[in-house]
Amino acid sequence: MSFTINAEISQFHGKLYKLSHESTSTKTKMDVNVFVPPSKSTKIPVLVYLSGLTCTPNNATEKSFFQYFATKYGFALVFPDTSPRGANIEGEDDSWDFGSGAGFYVDATTEKWSKNYNMYSYVHKELLTELSKQFPTLDFENISLSGHSMGGFGALSGFLSNPGKYKSVSAFAPISNPSTCPWGEKNFGNYLGEDKAAWYKYDPTHLIADYKHEHQPTILIHQGSADGFYAKDHQLQPEIFVDAAKKAGYKGGVELHVAEGYDHSYFFISTFAEEHAKHHAKYLGLSE
Amino acid sequence: MSFTINAEISQFHGKLYKLSHESTSTKTKMDVNVFVPPSKSTKIPVLVYLSGLTCTPNNATEKSFFQYFATKYGFALVFPDTSPRGANIEGEDDSWDFGSGAGFYVDATTEKWSKNYNMYSYVHKELLTELSKQFPTLDFENISLSGHSMGGFGALSGFLSNPGKYKSVSAFAPISNPSTCPWGEKNFGNYLGEDKAAWYKYDPTHLIADYKHEHQPTILIHQGSADGFYAKDHQLQPEIFVDAAKKAGYKGGVELHVAEGYDHSYFFISTFAEEHAKHHAKYLGLSE
Repeated sequence: MSFTINAEISQFHGKLYKLSHESTSTKTKMDVNVFVPPSKSTKIPVLVYLSGLTCTPNNATEKSFFQYFATKYGFALVFPDTSPRGANIEGEDDSWDFGSGAGFYVDATTEKWSKNYNMYSYVHKELLTELSKQFPTLDFENISLSGHSMGGFGALSGFLSNPGKYKSVSAFAPISNPSTCPWGEKNFGNYLGEDKAAWYKYDPTHLIADYKHEHQPTILIHQGSADGFYAKDHQLQPEIFVDAAKKAGYKGGVELHVAEGYDHSYFFISTFAEEHAKHHAKYLGLSE
Repeated sequence: MSFTINAEISQFHGKLYKLSHESTSTKTKMDVNVFVPPSKSTKIPVLVYLSGLTCTPNNATEKSFFQYFATKYGFALVFPDTSPRGANIEGEDDSWDFGSGAGFYVDATTEKWSKNYNMYSYVHKELLTELSKQFPTLDFENISLSGHSMGGFGALSGFLSNPGKYKSVSAFAPISNPSTCPWGEKNFGNYLGEDKAAWYKYDPTHLIADYKHEHQPTILIHQGSADGFYAKDHQLQPEIFVDAAKKAGYKGGVELHVAEGYDHSYFFISTFAEEHAKHHAKYLGLSE
Protein backbone atom coordinates (compact mmCIF):
# COMPACT_ATOMS: atom_id res chain seq x y z
CA MET A 1 0.00 0.00 0.00
CA SER A 2 1.13 3.52 -0.66
CA PHE A 3 3.26 5.51 1.71
CA THR A 4 2.49 8.44 3.95
CA ILE A 5 5.27 11.03 3.84
CA ASN A 6 5.77 12.07 7.47
CA ALA A 7 8.77 14.28 6.75
CA GLU A 8 10.79 15.42 3.76
CA ILE A 9 14.17 16.72 4.91
CA SER A 10 17.05 18.24 2.97
CA GLN A 11 20.43 16.65 3.68
CA PHE A 12 23.69 16.43 1.75
CA HIS A 13 22.01 18.06 -1.27
CA GLY A 14 19.53 15.18 -1.52
CA LYS A 15 16.22 14.42 0.17
CA LEU A 16 15.52 12.28 3.19
CA TYR A 17 11.96 10.91 3.39
CA LYS A 18 10.46 9.59 6.60
CA LEU A 19 7.67 7.32 5.45
CA SER A 20 5.13 4.94 6.86
CA HIS A 21 2.79 2.42 5.28
CA GLU A 22 0.45 -0.41 6.16
CA SER A 23 2.33 -3.66 5.60
CA THR A 24 0.59 -6.78 4.38
CA SER A 25 3.54 -8.88 5.65
CA THR A 26 3.41 -7.66 9.25
CA LYS A 27 -0.25 -6.50 9.40
CA THR A 28 1.04 -3.37 11.13
CA LYS A 29 2.03 0.13 10.18
CA MET A 30 5.73 0.17 9.31
CA ASP A 31 8.12 3.13 9.29
CA VAL A 32 10.94 3.39 6.77
CA ASN A 33 13.40 6.15 5.87
CA VAL A 34 14.63 6.68 2.32
CA PHE A 35 17.45 8.97 1.21
CA VAL A 36 17.50 10.01 -2.44
CA PRO A 37 20.78 11.56 -3.57
CA PRO A 38 20.90 14.64 -5.82
CA SER A 39 21.26 12.52 -8.96
CA LYS A 40 19.74 13.28 -12.35
CA SER A 41 19.74 9.56 -13.17
CA THR A 42 16.43 7.80 -13.67
CA LYS A 43 18.08 4.56 -12.57
CA ILE A 44 19.56 5.37 -9.19
CA PRO A 45 21.05 2.29 -7.47
CA VAL A 46 19.90 1.44 -3.98
CA LEU A 47 21.65 0.33 -0.79
CA VAL A 48 19.37 -1.23 1.82
CA TYR A 49 20.76 -0.84 5.34
CA LEU A 50 19.37 -3.16 8.02
CA SER A 51 19.71 -1.91 11.60
CA GLY A 52 20.43 -3.81 14.79
CA LEU A 53 18.55 -4.69 17.96
CA THR A 54 16.39 -1.91 19.47
CA CYS A 55 16.79 0.43 16.49
CA THR A 56 14.14 2.23 14.52
CA PRO A 57 14.84 3.59 11.03
CA ASN A 58 16.00 6.82 12.67
CA ASN A 59 19.14 5.62 14.48
CA ALA A 60 21.17 4.86 11.38
CA THR A 61 19.61 7.79 9.57
CA GLU A 62 20.90 10.16 12.25
CA LYS A 63 24.21 8.53 13.14
CA SER A 64 25.66 6.35 10.37
CA PHE A 65 26.53 9.19 7.93
CA PHE A 66 25.90 6.85 5.01
CA GLN A 67 24.01 9.72 3.35
CA TYR A 68 27.23 11.68 2.86
CA PHE A 69 28.66 8.82 0.81
CA ALA A 70 25.33 8.12 -0.91
CA THR A 71 25.51 11.66 -2.29
CA LYS A 72 29.18 11.26 -3.19
CA TYR A 73 28.62 8.06 -5.18
CA GLY A 74 25.01 8.56 -6.25
CA PHE A 75 23.08 5.73 -4.63
CA ALA A 76 19.86 5.85 -2.64
CA LEU A 77 19.51 4.47 0.88
CA VAL A 78 16.66 2.52 2.44
CA PHE A 79 16.52 2.22 6.24
CA PRO A 80 13.75 -0.25 7.23
CA ASP A 81 12.53 -0.74 10.78
CA THR A 82 13.77 -3.76 12.75
CA SER A 83 10.41 -5.35 13.63
CA PRO A 84 6.67 -4.84 13.55
CA ARG A 85 5.52 -2.32 16.17
CA GLY A 86 2.38 -2.54 18.22
CA ALA A 87 1.32 -6.01 17.08
CA ASN A 88 -0.09 -6.52 20.58
CA ILE A 89 1.46 -9.92 21.15
CA GLU A 90 1.98 -10.88 24.78
CA GLY A 91 5.63 -10.52 25.77
CA GLU A 92 6.48 -8.51 22.65
CA ASP A 93 7.86 -5.57 24.62
CA ASP A 94 9.41 -7.45 27.55
CA SER A 95 12.99 -7.91 26.23
CA TRP A 96 15.30 -5.45 24.55
CA ASP A 97 16.72 -8.28 22.44
CA PHE A 98 13.54 -10.06 21.38
CA GLY A 99 10.15 -8.99 19.97
CA SER A 100 9.78 -5.26 19.29
CA GLY A 101 13.00 -3.93 17.79
CA ALA A 102 14.22 -7.50 17.24
CA GLY A 103 12.35 -9.01 14.30
CA PHE A 104 15.56 -10.74 13.20
CA TYR A 105 14.65 -10.50 9.49
CA VAL A 106 12.97 -13.92 9.45
CA ASP A 107 9.42 -15.07 8.67
CA ALA A 108 8.14 -16.52 11.94
CA THR A 109 6.49 -19.92 11.76
CA THR A 110 5.41 -20.39 15.37
CA GLU A 111 1.74 -19.75 16.00
CA LYS A 112 2.26 -16.85 18.34
CA TRP A 113 4.52 -14.82 16.05
CA SER A 114 3.72 -15.91 12.51
CA LYS A 115 0.90 -13.46 11.87
CA ASN A 116 3.10 -10.38 12.27
CA TYR A 117 6.79 -11.19 12.58
CA ASN A 118 7.53 -11.61 8.89
CA MET A 119 10.45 -9.26 8.43
CA TYR A 120 12.10 -11.46 5.78
CA SER A 121 9.17 -11.15 3.38
CA TYR A 122 8.66 -7.55 4.41
CA VAL A 123 12.23 -6.40 3.67
CA HIS A 124 13.17 -8.52 0.68
CA LYS A 125 9.80 -8.54 -1.11
CA GLU A 126 7.01 -6.22 0.00
CA LEU A 127 9.04 -3.15 0.95
CA LEU A 128 11.18 -3.12 -2.17
CA THR A 129 8.16 -3.63 -4.43
CA GLU A 130 6.23 -0.85 -2.75
CA LEU A 131 9.19 1.55 -2.77
CA SER A 132 9.74 0.93 -6.49
CA LYS A 133 6.26 2.32 -7.11
CA GLN A 134 6.79 5.31 -4.81
CA PHE A 135 10.22 6.19 -6.24
CA PRO A 136 10.25 5.54 -10.00
CA THR A 137 13.78 6.97 -10.42
CA LEU A 138 15.27 4.38 -8.06
CA ASP A 139 16.45 1.19 -9.72
CA PHE A 140 15.44 -1.72 -7.54
CA GLU A 141 17.10 -4.09 -10.02
CA ASN A 142 20.47 -2.62 -9.05
CA ILE A 143 20.54 -2.99 -5.31
CA SER A 144 22.87 -3.98 -2.49
CA LEU A 145 22.57 -4.87 1.18
CA SER A 146 24.36 -3.83 4.34
CA GLY A 147 23.58 -3.86 8.03
CA HIS A 148 24.77 -3.86 11.62
CA SER A 149 24.69 -6.60 14.26
CA MET A 150 21.25 -8.24 13.89
CA GLY A 151 21.03 -6.22 10.66
CA GLY A 152 24.44 -7.51 9.60
CA PHE A 153 23.01 -10.97 10.03
CA GLY A 154 19.96 -9.86 8.05
CA ALA A 155 22.17 -8.56 5.25
CA LEU A 156 24.31 -11.71 4.96
CA SER A 157 21.28 -13.96 5.28
CA GLY A 158 19.20 -12.00 2.78
CA PHE A 159 22.03 -11.88 0.26
CA LEU A 160 22.76 -15.60 0.43
CA SER A 161 19.14 -16.74 0.39
CA ASN A 162 18.28 -14.56 -2.63
CA PRO A 163 21.06 -15.56 -5.03
CA GLY A 164 21.64 -12.92 -7.68
CA LYS A 165 19.13 -10.45 -6.26
CA TYR A 166 21.64 -8.19 -4.52
CA LYS A 167 24.75 -6.95 -6.32
CA SER A 168 26.83 -6.92 -3.15
CA VAL A 169 26.66 -7.31 0.61
CA SER A 170 28.55 -5.97 3.59
CA ALA A 171 28.11 -6.06 7.34
CA PHE A 172 29.20 -4.30 10.52
CA ALA A 173 29.66 -6.64 13.48
CA PRO A 174 27.16 -9.17 12.12
CA ILE A 175 25.62 -12.01 14.11
CA SER A 176 27.30 -14.46 11.79
CA ASN A 177 26.27 -17.85 13.12
CA PRO A 178 23.01 -17.23 15.02
CA SER A 179 22.29 -20.93 15.44
CA THR A 180 25.12 -21.10 17.97
CA CYS A 181 24.83 -17.84 19.95
CA PRO A 182 22.44 -16.72 22.70
CA TRP A 183 20.70 -14.02 20.61
CA GLY A 184 20.10 -16.43 17.76
CA GLU A 185 18.92 -19.22 20.04
CA LYS A 186 16.45 -16.92 21.80
CA ASN A 187 15.01 -15.38 18.65
CA PHE A 188 15.13 -18.37 16.30
CA GLY A 189 13.68 -20.58 19.04
CA ASN A 190 10.75 -18.25 19.53
CA TYR A 191 10.11 -17.31 15.92
CA LEU A 192 11.00 -20.60 14.18
CA GLY A 193 10.53 -23.28 16.81
CA GLU A 194 12.96 -25.84 18.09
CA ASP A 195 13.77 -27.66 14.84
CA LYS A 196 17.21 -26.39 13.93
CA ALA A 197 16.79 -27.26 10.27
CA ALA A 198 14.49 -24.23 10.08
CA TRP A 199 17.18 -22.04 11.67
CA TYR A 200 19.83 -23.08 9.19
CA LYS A 201 17.76 -21.67 6.30
CA TYR A 202 18.53 -18.22 7.69
CA ASP A 203 21.97 -18.79 9.21
CA PRO A 204 24.69 -17.19 7.03
CA THR A 205 27.26 -19.76 8.07
CA HIS A 206 25.00 -22.58 6.87
CA LEU A 207 23.75 -20.68 3.82
CA ILE A 208 27.23 -19.99 2.47
CA ALA A 209 28.14 -23.66 2.83
CA ASP A 210 25.36 -24.49 0.33
CA TYR A 211 25.65 -21.41 -1.89
CA LYS A 212 25.99 -22.44 -5.53
CA HIS A 213 24.99 -19.35 -7.56
CA GLU A 214 27.70 -17.94 -9.82
CA HIS A 215 27.27 -14.41 -8.40
CA GLN A 216 29.92 -14.39 -5.68
CA PRO A 217 31.07 -10.82 -4.96
CA THR A 218 33.52 -10.14 -2.15
CA ILE A 219 31.74 -9.90 1.19
CA LEU A 220 33.04 -7.00 3.31
CA ILE A 221 32.81 -7.21 7.11
CA HIS A 222 34.11 -4.87 9.79
CA GLN A 223 34.25 -5.92 13.42
CA GLY A 224 35.47 -3.84 16.37
CA SER A 225 37.96 -5.60 18.61
CA ALA A 226 36.63 -3.83 21.73
CA ASP A 227 33.02 -4.80 21.01
CA GLY A 228 31.85 -6.70 24.08
CA PHE A 229 29.28 -8.68 22.07
CA TYR A 230 32.22 -9.96 20.02
CA ALA A 231 35.08 -10.27 22.45
CA LYS A 232 33.21 -11.30 25.62
CA ASP A 233 29.77 -12.61 24.71
CA HIS A 234 30.52 -14.44 21.45
CA GLN A 235 27.27 -13.27 19.89
CA LEU A 236 28.90 -12.27 16.60
CA GLN A 237 31.52 -14.88 15.59
CA PRO A 238 32.48 -13.51 12.14
CA GLU A 239 35.49 -15.88 12.00
CA ILE A 240 33.16 -18.88 11.88
CA PHE A 241 31.48 -17.37 8.83
CA VAL A 242 34.84 -16.64 7.20
CA ASP A 243 35.89 -20.26 7.73
CA ALA A 244 32.63 -21.56 6.26
CA ALA A 245 33.07 -19.36 3.18
CA LYS A 246 36.60 -20.65 2.73
CA LYS A 247 35.57 -24.24 3.16
CA ALA A 248 32.76 -23.75 0.63
CA GLY A 249 35.16 -22.19 -1.87
CA TYR A 250 33.08 -18.98 -2.08
CA LYS A 251 34.86 -17.24 -4.94
CA GLY A 252 34.69 -13.57 -3.94
CA GLY A 253 35.94 -14.39 -0.47
CA VAL A 254 35.09 -12.68 2.80
CA GLU A 255 37.17 -9.65 3.67
CA LEU A 256 37.02 -9.44 7.47
CA HIS A 257 38.63 -6.42 9.12
CA VAL A 258 38.93 -6.54 12.88
CA ALA A 259 39.36 -2.88 13.78
CA GLU A 260 41.50 -2.41 16.87
CA GLY A 261 39.77 -0.61 19.74
CA TYR A 262 36.39 -0.10 18.09
CA ASP A 263 33.15 -0.89 19.91
CA HIS A 264 29.64 -1.86 18.73
CA SER A 265 28.25 1.69 18.44
CA TYR A 266 27.40 4.09 15.64
CA PHE A 267 30.83 5.65 16.23
CA PHE A 268 32.17 2.38 14.83
CA ILE A 269 29.65 2.25 11.98
CA SER A 270 30.20 5.87 10.90
CA THR A 271 33.95 5.30 10.84
CA PHE A 272 33.76 2.47 8.32
CA ALA A 273 30.67 3.61 6.39
CA GLU A 274 33.04 5.14 3.83
CA GLU A 275 34.71 1.81 3.03
CA HIS A 276 31.36 0.03 2.81
CA ALA A 277 29.92 2.74 0.56
CA LYS A 278 32.93 2.45 -1.74
CA HIS A 279 32.59 -1.35 -1.79
CA HIS A 280 28.94 -1.21 -2.82
CA ALA A 281 29.47 1.66 -5.29
CA LYS A 282 31.86 -0.54 -7.21
CA TYR A 283 29.36 -3.41 -7.52
CA LEU A 284 26.52 -0.99 -8.29
CA GLY A 285 28.50 0.40 -11.22
CA LEU A 286 29.15 3.80 -9.64
CA SER A 287 32.32 5.84 -9.39
CA GLU A 288 33.13 8.98 -7.39
CA MET B 1 39.90 20.75 38.32
CA SER B 2 40.92 17.62 36.56
CA PHE B 3 38.61 15.58 34.39
CA THR B 4 36.95 12.24 34.91
CA ILE B 5 37.06 10.16 31.73
CA ASN B 6 33.61 8.60 31.47
CA ALA B 7 34.24 7.02 28.09
CA GLU B 8 37.04 6.74 25.56
CA ILE B 9 35.65 5.77 22.17
CA SER B 10 37.39 5.06 18.86
CA GLN B 11 35.98 6.97 15.91
CA PHE B 12 37.40 8.02 12.54
CA HIS B 13 40.83 6.70 13.57
CA GLY B 14 40.98 9.16 16.46
CA LYS B 15 39.65 9.13 20.01
CA LEU B 16 36.48 10.60 21.41
CA TYR B 17 36.57 11.35 25.13
CA LYS B 18 33.44 11.87 27.19
CA LEU B 19 34.62 13.85 30.19
CA SER B 20 33.22 15.56 33.25
CA HIS B 21 34.72 17.93 35.80
CA GLU B 22 33.74 20.18 38.66
CA SER B 23 33.55 23.72 37.32
CA THR B 24 34.51 26.72 39.41
CA SER B 25 32.55 28.98 37.03
CA THR B 26 29.23 27.17 37.34
CA LYS B 27 29.76 25.46 40.73
CA THR B 28 28.36 22.30 39.14
CA LYS B 29 29.67 19.21 37.47
CA MET B 30 30.02 19.88 33.73
CA ASP B 31 30.17 17.36 30.90
CA VAL B 32 32.27 17.94 27.81
CA ASN B 33 33.23 15.79 24.84
CA VAL B 34 36.62 16.06 23.14
CA PHE B 35 37.65 14.44 19.86
CA VAL B 36 41.38 14.05 19.23
CA PRO B 37 42.26 13.24 15.61
CA PRO B 38 44.90 10.63 14.72
CA SER B 39 47.60 13.27 14.39
CA LYS B 40 51.24 12.90 15.36
CA SER B 41 51.49 16.65 15.90
CA THR B 42 52.17 17.96 19.40
CA LYS B 43 50.38 21.17 18.44
CA ILE B 44 46.99 20.02 17.24
CA PRO B 45 44.66 22.96 16.50
CA VAL B 46 41.26 23.01 18.18
CA LEU B 47 37.75 23.82 17.00
CA VAL B 48 35.27 24.55 19.79
CA TYR B 49 31.69 23.79 18.77
CA LEU B 50 28.90 25.38 20.82
CA SER B 51 25.55 23.61 20.67
CA GLY B 52 22.05 25.04 20.64
CA LEU B 53 19.07 25.06 22.99
CA THR B 54 18.31 21.78 24.81
CA CYS B 55 21.51 20.07 23.67
CA THR B 56 24.09 18.25 25.76
CA PRO B 57 27.61 17.61 24.44
CA ASN B 58 26.31 14.36 22.93
CA ASN B 59 23.93 15.70 20.28
CA ALA B 60 26.57 17.29 18.08
CA THR B 61 29.00 14.49 18.90
CA GLU B 62 26.57 11.93 17.51
CA LYS B 63 24.97 13.89 14.70
CA SER B 64 27.12 16.75 13.37
CA PHE B 65 29.65 14.60 11.48
CA PHE B 66 32.40 17.12 12.36
CA GLN B 67 34.72 14.33 13.53
CA TYR B 68 35.06 12.99 9.99
CA PHE B 69 36.49 16.32 8.87
CA ALA B 70 38.51 16.80 12.06
CA THR B 71 40.36 13.61 11.12
CA LYS B 72 40.67 14.70 7.49
CA TYR B 73 42.22 18.07 8.37
CA GLY B 74 43.84 17.23 11.69
CA PHE B 75 42.09 19.42 14.25
CA ALA B 76 40.62 18.48 17.60
CA LEU B 77 37.02 19.19 18.57
CA VAL B 78 35.60 20.39 21.88
CA PHE B 79 31.85 20.02 22.49
CA PRO B 80 30.90 21.84 25.72
CA ASP B 81 27.52 21.53 27.41
CA THR B 82 24.97 24.32 26.94
CA SER B 83 24.33 25.22 30.59
CA PRO B 84 24.99 24.17 34.16
CA ARG B 85 22.96 21.10 35.14
CA GLY B 86 21.33 20.52 38.48
CA ALA B 87 22.09 23.92 39.97
CA ASN B 88 18.78 23.60 41.83
CA ILE B 89 17.49 27.05 40.96
CA GLU B 90 13.72 27.46 41.02
CA GLY B 91 12.30 27.46 37.48
CA GLU B 92 15.56 26.17 35.97
CA ASP B 93 13.87 23.18 34.33
CA ASP B 94 10.51 24.76 33.46
CA SER B 95 11.26 25.95 29.90
CA TRP B 96 12.95 24.19 27.03
CA ASP B 97 14.39 27.53 25.89
CA PHE B 98 15.59 28.97 29.19
CA GLY B 99 17.60 27.64 32.16
CA SER B 100 18.87 24.08 31.82
CA GLY B 101 20.10 23.53 28.26
CA ALA B 102 19.95 27.27 27.62
CA GLY B 103 22.84 28.96 29.38
CA PHE B 104 23.23 31.32 26.41
CA TYR B 105 27.00 31.56 26.86
CA VAL B 106 26.78 34.67 29.08
CA ASP B 107 27.86 35.39 32.66
CA ALA B 108 24.61 36.04 34.52
CA THR B 109 24.50 39.15 36.70
CA THR B 110 21.05 38.83 38.23
CA GLU B 111 21.02 37.54 41.79
CA LYS B 112 19.09 34.41 41.04
CA TRP B 113 21.34 33.16 38.24
CA SER B 114 24.75 34.71 38.81
CA LYS B 115 26.11 31.99 41.07
CA ASN B 116 25.90 29.23 38.44
CA TYR B 117 24.97 30.53 35.00
CA ASN B 118 28.42 31.70 33.95
CA MET B 119 28.82 29.92 30.64
CA TYR B 120 30.86 32.75 29.11
CA SER B 121 33.65 32.41 31.66
CA TYR B 122 33.26 28.67 31.63
CA VAL B 123 33.67 28.21 27.88
CA HIS B 124 36.15 30.92 26.98
CA LYS B 125 38.35 30.72 30.07
CA GLU B 126 38.01 27.86 32.54
CA LEU B 127 37.26 25.03 30.15
CA LEU B 128 40.03 25.85 27.69
CA THR B 129 42.57 26.29 30.47
CA GLU B 130 41.61 22.99 32.09
CA LEU B 131 41.59 21.11 28.79
CA SER B 132 45.05 22.42 27.92
CA LYS B 133 46.34 20.64 31.03
CA GLN B 134 44.47 17.43 30.25
CA PHE B 135 45.53 17.33 26.58
CA PRO B 136 49.10 18.59 26.24
CA THR B 137 49.24 17.81 22.49
CA LEU B 138 46.33 20.15 21.74
CA ASP B 139 47.33 23.74 20.94
CA PHE B 140 44.90 26.05 22.69
CA GLU B 141 46.73 29.02 21.18
CA ASN B 142 45.52 27.91 17.73
CA ILE B 143 41.83 27.67 18.15
CA SER B 144 38.59 28.51 16.35
CA LEU B 145 34.91 28.71 17.20
CA SER B 146 31.73 27.43 15.63
CA GLY B 147 28.23 26.69 16.81
CA HIS B 148 24.55 26.26 16.04
CA SER B 149 21.58 28.48 16.88
CA MET B 150 22.15 29.62 20.50
CA GLY B 151 25.65 28.17 20.01
CA GLY B 152 26.02 30.11 16.77
CA PHE B 153 25.29 33.20 18.81
CA GLY B 154 27.81 32.00 21.39
CA ALA B 155 30.44 31.55 18.68
CA LEU B 156 29.95 34.97 17.09
CA SER B 157 29.71 36.66 20.48
CA GLY B 158 32.74 34.86 21.91
CA PHE B 159 34.84 35.60 18.84
CA LEU B 160 34.01 39.31 18.78
CA SER B 161 34.38 39.87 22.50
CA ASN B 162 37.77 38.14 22.64
CA PRO B 163 39.59 39.94 19.82
CA GLY B 164 42.49 37.91 18.51
CA LYS B 165 41.82 34.88 20.70
CA TYR B 166 40.11 32.76 18.05
CA LYS B 167 41.64 32.35 14.60
CA SER B 168 38.24 32.08 12.90
CA VAL B 169 34.54 31.79 13.56
CA SER B 170 31.55 30.27 11.81
CA ALA B 171 27.94 29.64 12.67
CA PHE B 172 24.96 27.55 11.66
CA ALA B 173 21.62 29.40 11.94
CA PRO B 174 22.94 31.72 14.68
CA ILE B 175 20.78 33.91 16.89
CA SER B 176 22.45 36.96 15.40
CA ASN B 177 20.76 39.87 17.14
CA PRO B 178 19.45 38.45 20.43
CA SER B 179 18.58 41.89 21.82
CA THR B 180 15.68 42.05 19.35
CA CYS B 181 14.28 38.49 19.31
CA PRO B 182 12.09 36.55 21.76
CA TRP B 183 14.77 34.02 22.76
CA GLY B 184 17.28 36.78 23.44
CA GLU B 185 14.79 38.93 25.33
CA LYS B 186 13.77 36.01 27.55
CA ASN B 187 17.27 34.84 28.34
CA PHE B 188 19.11 38.16 28.48
CA GLY B 189 16.30 39.64 30.57
CA ASN B 190 16.55 36.84 33.11
CA TYR B 191 20.33 36.44 33.17
CA LEU B 192 21.42 40.06 32.66
CA GLY B 193 18.50 42.16 33.87
CA GLU B 194 16.52 44.81 32.07
CA ASP B 195 19.32 47.27 31.23
CA LYS B 196 19.92 46.68 27.54
CA ALA B 197 23.43 48.10 27.70
CA ALA B 198 24.39 44.82 29.40
CA TRP B 199 22.79 42.83 26.59
CA TYR B 200 24.72 44.67 23.88
CA LYS B 201 28.04 43.48 25.35
CA TYR B 202 27.10 39.98 24.17
CA ASP B 203 25.04 40.80 21.06
CA PRO B 204 27.05 40.01 17.89
CA THR B 205 25.28 42.73 15.92
CA HIS B 206 26.35 45.34 18.49
CA LEU B 207 29.80 43.83 19.04
CA ILE B 208 30.73 43.92 15.36
CA ALA B 209 29.72 47.57 15.15
CA ASP B 210 32.41 48.38 17.73
CA TYR B 211 35.00 45.76 16.68
CA LYS B 212 38.37 47.46 16.10
CA HIS B 213 40.95 44.65 16.34
CA GLU B 214 43.01 44.08 13.19
CA HIS B 215 42.22 40.32 13.17
CA GLN B 216 39.17 40.24 10.88
CA PRO B 217 38.86 36.81 9.23
CA THR B 218 35.87 36.05 7.02
CA ILE B 219 32.88 34.97 9.09
CA LEU B 220 31.06 31.99 7.56
CA ILE B 221 27.34 31.51 8.25
CA HIS B 222 24.89 28.95 6.87
CA GLN B 223 21.17 29.38 7.33
CA GLY B 224 18.43 27.03 6.10
CA SER B 225 15.63 28.76 4.20
CA ALA B 226 13.02 26.31 5.55
CA ASP B 227 14.08 26.82 9.17
CA GLY B 228 10.93 27.99 10.99
CA PHE B 229 12.97 29.85 13.62
CA TYR B 230 14.38 31.90 10.73
CA ALA B 231 11.55 32.24 8.24
CA LYS B 232 8.56 32.40 10.60
CA ASP B 233 9.73 33.33 14.09
CA HIS B 234 12.54 35.77 13.31
CA GLN B 235 14.69 34.42 16.13
CA LEU B 236 17.85 34.23 14.00
CA GLN B 237 18.08 37.34 11.75
CA PRO B 238 21.52 36.74 10.20
CA GLU B 239 20.89 39.52 7.64
CA ILE B 240 20.88 42.13 10.43
CA PHE B 241 24.34 40.92 11.47
CA VAL B 242 25.57 40.99 7.87
CA ASP B 243 24.36 44.58 7.52
CA ALA B 244 26.03 45.61 10.78
CA ALA B 245 29.33 44.06 9.62
CA LYS B 246 29.10 45.93 6.32
CA LYS B 247 28.28 49.20 8.00
CA ALA B 248 31.20 48.71 10.39
CA GLY B 249 33.56 47.98 7.50
CA TYR B 250 34.54 44.57 8.96
CA LYS B 251 37.37 43.64 6.62
CA GLY B 252 36.95 39.87 6.26
CA GLY B 253 33.26 40.26 5.57
CA VAL B 254 30.43 37.92 6.48
CA GLU B 255 29.74 35.12 4.02
CA LEU B 256 26.08 34.25 4.55
CA HIS B 257 24.70 31.28 2.64
CA VAL B 258 20.95 30.79 2.78
CA ALA B 259 20.57 27.14 1.84
CA GLU B 260 17.32 26.48 0.00
CA GLY B 261 15.02 23.98 1.69
CA TYR B 262 17.17 23.24 4.75
CA ASP B 263 15.72 23.23 8.25
CA HIS B 264 17.21 23.84 11.73
CA SER B 265 18.21 20.23 12.46
CA TYR B 266 21.43 18.24 12.58
CA PHE B 267 20.64 17.12 9.01
CA PHE B 268 21.32 20.75 8.08
CA ILE B 269 24.45 20.97 10.26
CA SER B 270 25.97 17.72 8.99
CA THR B 271 25.42 18.84 5.39
CA PHE B 272 27.48 22.01 5.79
CA ALA B 273 29.98 20.77 8.41
CA GLU B 274 32.37 20.07 5.55
CA GLU B 275 32.43 23.70 4.39
CA HIS B 276 32.83 24.96 7.95
CA ALA B 277 35.63 22.49 8.64
CA LYS B 278 37.43 23.62 5.49
CA HIS B 279 36.96 27.27 6.47
CA HIS B 280 38.49 26.75 9.91
CA ALA B 281 41.26 24.47 8.63
CA LYS B 282 42.49 27.30 6.43
CA TYR B 283 42.70 29.76 9.34
CA LEU B 284 44.22 27.12 11.62
CA GLY B 285 47.01 26.54 9.12
CA LEU B 286 45.90 23.06 8.07
CA SER B 287 45.49 21.50 4.66
CA GLU B 288 43.89 18.24 3.54
